[in-house]
Amino acid sequence: MAKTTSKPSAATRRSPCPVACSLDIVGDRWTLLVIRDLVFGRTRFKDFSASPEGIPTNVLSERLARLLRHQIVGQIPAHDGTKRSAYQLTEKGQALRPLLEAMCDWGLKWEPDTQALMTSEPE
Amino acid sequence: MAKTTSKPSAATRRSPCPVACSLDIVGDRWTLLVIRDLVFGRTRFKDFSASPEGIPTNVLSERLARLLRHQIVGQIPAHDGTKRSAYQLTEKGQALRPLLEAMCDWGLKWEPDTQALMTSEPE
Repeated sequence: MAKTTSKPSAATRRSPCPVACSLDIVGDRWTLLVIRDLVFGRTRFKDFSASPEGIPTNVLSERLARLLRHQIVGQIPAHDGTKRSAYQLTEKGQALRPLLEAMCDWGLKWEPDTQALMTSEPE
Repeated sequence: MAKTTSKPSAATRRSPCPVACSLDIVGDRWTLLVIRDLVFGRTRFKDFSASPEGIPTNVLSERLARLLRHQIVGQIPAHDGTKRSAYQLTEKGQALRPLLEAMCDWGLKWEPDTQALMTSEPE
């Protein structure tokens, strides 16, 4: 198996703690924003890239590759018939919704001036 | 106000999205592991440092300072009467429990060979 497709194993993980293992995958400033965009129906690289946080394209490429590797997203043909891929959440990816909702709830309650502004379609 | 005690404002935030604002505080590989340790009753720098993931002490210092700055943890006198501080979760910090539980649940379900091994007392 090519190195780029390898997944964490007991040997590379920091511990068997499920929180630590989850953080090894989604514990950064950007990954859950891409998951958020996918939950809201965005499917294309350009859509994620257009989100207000301004994810750098090299970071986005790396995160999408990681999400594919962990089978959190899958690739599908783009609706517009171009050869570019679109992305969608797998069952494993959909299962991150409670985590995203907990993060949203906490932010709304405890960080002033936050607003859940995202809509279900790209602008 | 000293620069080190400043909090994110509308000017420094990536967006008003509550997920993005939460990730600006806890979106890294280590912070939620410190929160986990606090939930399990660990209170001292040396306890967090002894957790199996092996957080580097400079990273731990920086994360505790950030958590204090965001009023997610507070400092209390250590039980052993030394001058060193102990830490405890504030109400805002306790409110991160659902997020931690969602992360734990997802890891247990979707990442193989994870185990919720932590106990409520330091070893």
